[in-house]
Amino acid sequence: MSHTIQQIAAAIGAETAGDVTIVVDRAAEPASAGPEDLALAMTPNYGEALAQGKARAAILWPGADWRAMGLEAAVFAPRPRRAMAGLTALLDEGQGFAPGIHASAVIDPSAEIGARVSIGPFSVIGAHARIGPDSVIGPQCHVGAQAVLGEGAFLREMVSIGARVRIGARFIAQPGARIGADGFSFVTPEVSGVENVRKTLGDTGDAGAQSWVRIHSLGSVEIGDDVEVGANSTIDNGTIRATVLGNGTKLDNLVHVGHNTRVGHDCLLCGQVGVSGSVEIGNHVVLGGQVGVVDNIFIGDGVIAAGGTKILSNVPAGRVLMGYPAVRMQTHTEIYKAQRRLPRLLRDVAALKKAVFNPGSND
Amino acid sequence: MSHTIQQIAAAIGAETAGDVTIVVDRAAEPASAGPEDLALAMTPNYGEALAQGKARAAILWPGADWRAMGLEAAVFAPRPRRAMAGLTALLDEGQGFAPGIHASAVIDPSAEIGARVSIGPFSVIGAHARIGPDSVIGPQCHVGAQAVLGEGAFLREMVSIGARVRIGARFIAQPGARIGADGFSFVTPEVSGVENVRKTLGDTGDAGAQSWVRIHSLGSVEIGDDVEVGANSTIDNGTIRATVLGNGTKLDNLVHVGHNTRVGHDCLLCGQVGVSGSVEIGNHVVLGGQVGVVDNIFIGDGVIAAGGTKILSNVPAGRVLMGYPAVRMQTHTEIYKAQRRLPRLLRDVAALKKAVFNPGSND
Amino acid sequence: MSHTIQQIAAAIGAETAGDVTIVVDRAAEPASAGPEDLALAMTPNYGEALAQGKARAAILWPGADWRAMGLEAAVFAPRPRRAMAGLTALLDEGQGFAPGIHASAVIDPSAEIGARVSIGPFSVIGAHARIGPDSVIGPQCHVGAQAVLGEGAFLREMVSIGARVRIGARFIAQPGARIGADGFSFVTPEVSGVENVRKTLGDTGDAGAQSWVRIHSLGSVEIGDDVEVGANSTIDNGTIRATVLGNGTKLDNLVHVGHNTRVGHDCLLCGQVGVSGSVEIGNHVVLGGQVGVVDNIFIGDGVIAAGGTKILSNVPAGRVLMGYPAVRMQTHTEIYKAQRRLPRLLRDVAALKKAVFNPGSND
Repeated sequence: MSHTIQQIAAAIGAETAGDVTIVVDRAAEPASAGPEDLALAMTPNYGEALAQGKARAAILWPGADWRAMGLEAAVFAPRPRRAMAGLTALLDEGQGFAPGIHASAVIDPSAEIGARVSIGPFSVIGAHARIGPDSVIGPQCHVGAQAVLGEGAFLREMVSIGARVRIGARFIAQPGARIGADGFSFVTPEVSGVENVRKTLGDTGDAGAQSWVRIHSLGSVEIGDDVEVGANSTIDNGTIRATVLGNGTKLDNLVHVGHNTRVGHDCLLCGQVGVSGSVEIGNHVVLGGQVGVVDNIFIGDGVIAAGGTKILSNVPAGRVLMGYPAVRMQTHTEIYKAQRRLPRLLRDVAALKKAVFNPGSND
Repeated sequence: MSHTIQQIAAAIGAETAGDVTIVVDRAAEPASAGPEDLALAMTPNYGEALAQGKARAAILWPGADWRAMGLEAAVFAPRPRRAMAGLTALLDEGQGFAPGIHASAVIDPSAEIGARVSIGPFSVIGAHARIGPDSVIGPQCHVGAQAVLGEGAFLREMVSIGARVRIGARFIAQPGARIGADGFSFVTPEVSGVENVRKTLGDTGDAGAQSWVRIHSLGSVEIGDDVEVGANSTIDNGTIRATVLGNGTKLDNLVHVGHNTRVGHDCLLCGQVGVSGSVEIGNHVVLGGQVGVVDNIFIGDGVIAAGGTKILSNVPAGRVLMGYPAVRMQTHTEIYKAQRRLPRLLRDVAALKKAVFNPGSND
Repeated sequence: MSHTIQQIAAAIGAETAGDVTIVVDRAAEPASAGPEDLALAMTPNYGEALAQGKARAAILWPGADWRAMGLEAAVFAPRPRRAMAGLTALLDEGQGFAPGIHASAVIDPSAEIGARVSIGPFSVIGAHARIGPDSVIGPQCHVGAQAVLGEGAFLREMVSIGARVRIGARFIAQPGARIGADGFSFVTPEVSGVENVRKTLGDTGDAGAQSWVRIHSLGSVEIGDDVEVGANSTIDNGTIRATVLGNGTKLDNLVHVGHNTRVGHDCLLCGQVGVSGSVEIGNHVVLGGQVGVVDNIFIGDGVIAAGGTKILSNVPAGRVLMGYPAVRMQTHTEIYKAQRRLPRLLRDVAALKKAVFNPGSND
């Protein structure tokens, strides 16, 4: 995957200096870069490491003195991570999945497979499923009956998509992602202890011993365009209507989204986030790693929750959260500081009590 | 899947009114329901939405004035979620897995496959495995050597069941569920830092740098009747005896149950719950999403833990828990309220100290 | 898998007494052991249970009076769990995966398969992949293009290994483990609300509504010797260089390791641990269940974090942590005790305020 410096700069929309005809094979960290590598030194603190490597060309911070660093060519990146997006897209070697439909794949004759779709070995495509053009269905995948995948989907190995799931264009799913498992929804014949606890905030009441009866999922999952779902993440079917992920929303690995939940557009759900059922999440929401969201609440647009936050009640738009239970990040910081002073506070109050209520005591 | 109102009412044991010969194709939310849909408006706050839709028939709360809502037929649901169980079971279209045994499935000749079992493409059934009658083994599943599945099992795609696992009747496993992975059990040749920390509550002692030696899992997993395991959940093998899930227990997605742990009957383990090894969990226990349970403790019958609770010590029967570390839910609420007043409390105590110990100061 | 008492004692390096020619078939708990079982009673509190069982031979604590317990032979275990390692390795019946390469496996002609490798049905081996001798690739596995597995690897069913991943000797992967998914790395064209929050600790600033652009993973994953990865765990590819797991490190189920993160040697990451991207973890680190680690920090050698700890900043070597946010375990205990006294403290301070500032009041 060789590219000239000029090609790279054009792809990421950046300025250049020096010999832009130099050809590089891949990107590398500055210290370990060889003469065929493009060194990535996007902030001045990487400058020194450049000297340890052997790169002839580098992506540098704006204004860097590339000649003084012994380079023959430079690309300037005003917003380094933005440049990384373009650069890595250009240099990605991919997984090497073969084009075409593998002879072993089991494809229902009623399925509609778009132009230029590739399907890997041991993949299964169900009845009346539709797969958009230019999609790559990796090895050992499952696309259920009547499921719809838009154009340009890319499924890594062992992804499963349940019956009737509908997904927009350019969907990416990492290995083991599960779209359209049944929702976790059970009911007891009579009022259960859990229902009593929710009403009383702590009392199970006299709910007798009962068994759980299953509520089936009649809804499926609807996913917009440009969505990515991480490895081994799970998105459950809705009960009557669909569970929804909006356009441009990205899920990391091991994320759980419960039945009926609606996630807006351009959200990020980081690793191991768990969203219960029937949650309404707005647009541009960012949930850090291991965030949990209780069922039947809403989270407004632009909310950001730090890693580990447990969200137990509605959150207005724009709020920044932390803690268990979640509070505003500033409040959390105040509480946290106060907590660390708690042991001392206890001693202070003991001394005050003695001075005020028992001033004559000697011990 | 068309049904008359009469058929639906009979299936869920509910009363009716109006023209019970009306035929409906599926369930729908009141506002989006069409004339072939059965609208679900089980509480009065859905009444208004009914007017926006075009349903001719609906499931309504007891006493609802169905005629005034323009309906031609009504089913009355005294306990709405209970009615949902019956209704959704009736209307579930399923995954469309084909009957019969797919030609590509690899089934060991010594395996015993019951009557009317279906096995999907690319599934593997190991030596001496036994699959009960009327079971559906989805595509790309794995049932290990000597594993036993009772009658009426339903495995979605890509479920794996390890060697010697024993499962009762009517088991349901969502995609990617893993039953019978090896337990996570390692030991150092000499006493380790972790062992010292457990003894001293915080001191690693002088445990040197050691490598971990594996303790293999000789036990497997035993699962009762009517159990469901969610997508990508994992139940590990026991060390000597089996890890156990009792009858009627339900696990959501991404739940982890460690080696040797015994979960009683009719429990609910919600999304991303993690139970360590050698835990004894009673019956009718409900663990909310992301609850964690430390190893080697017991949790009594009927315990309910709110989402995010981390249970670090034994819990008597009937207790309702919250927090990290887990405390009674009422205690948690008290502590939480006090925490929010902490910053103010610190100021109050500072003022008191000044007034009591330094009354003449002016600053 | 029959063994004499002598063979077992030799395998675990233990002393014996009595008739060491007795043959046992498997290990069992003392109370349920039959005459062909080896009872495991490694501490005196199992002594009584032995009387309930029918074992002729047992592994006992040093100095136990085996004859008085009615046994005919005894093996003495000075460090019981260490003995379990040897014993369970000896008695492990395995998964029963057949030797040889299954006819259905799809193996690229350019892949290099070592001597005595077995590959299960429906497994896929990509172009230029290399699999070391004596490896067992279970059913329905995927080994990507140019991936390298050292000698003696053991992959359970449905494990997937991405392109260019490099793994050392004796690797063990439980079902559904995912090595080499793409990292979760996205950037907005302009500064995002998350970036502002990180700078200001709580303020999203005026970041407008933007969509996320993907940063591709050009790096892969490098794993040392003697590493084990649990069921449905996920290790992501690095961005430019590889994500790294050192020799002897063990991961439990549902663990997530983000892109670029480096984990040292001989670490334990327990169930559902989540490590973000670009974290540097030292050697001999133990992270309890559900621990979370924020991105771009380091954790020193020998650190131990109790279950549920959320690590939000750098941790020096040797520290023992607990809590959210993580503090020293001793500090956590102090804070926790003080918290439980908080409601009473509030009442005390109210009484003090009244006495000091409003002494004449009667209510």
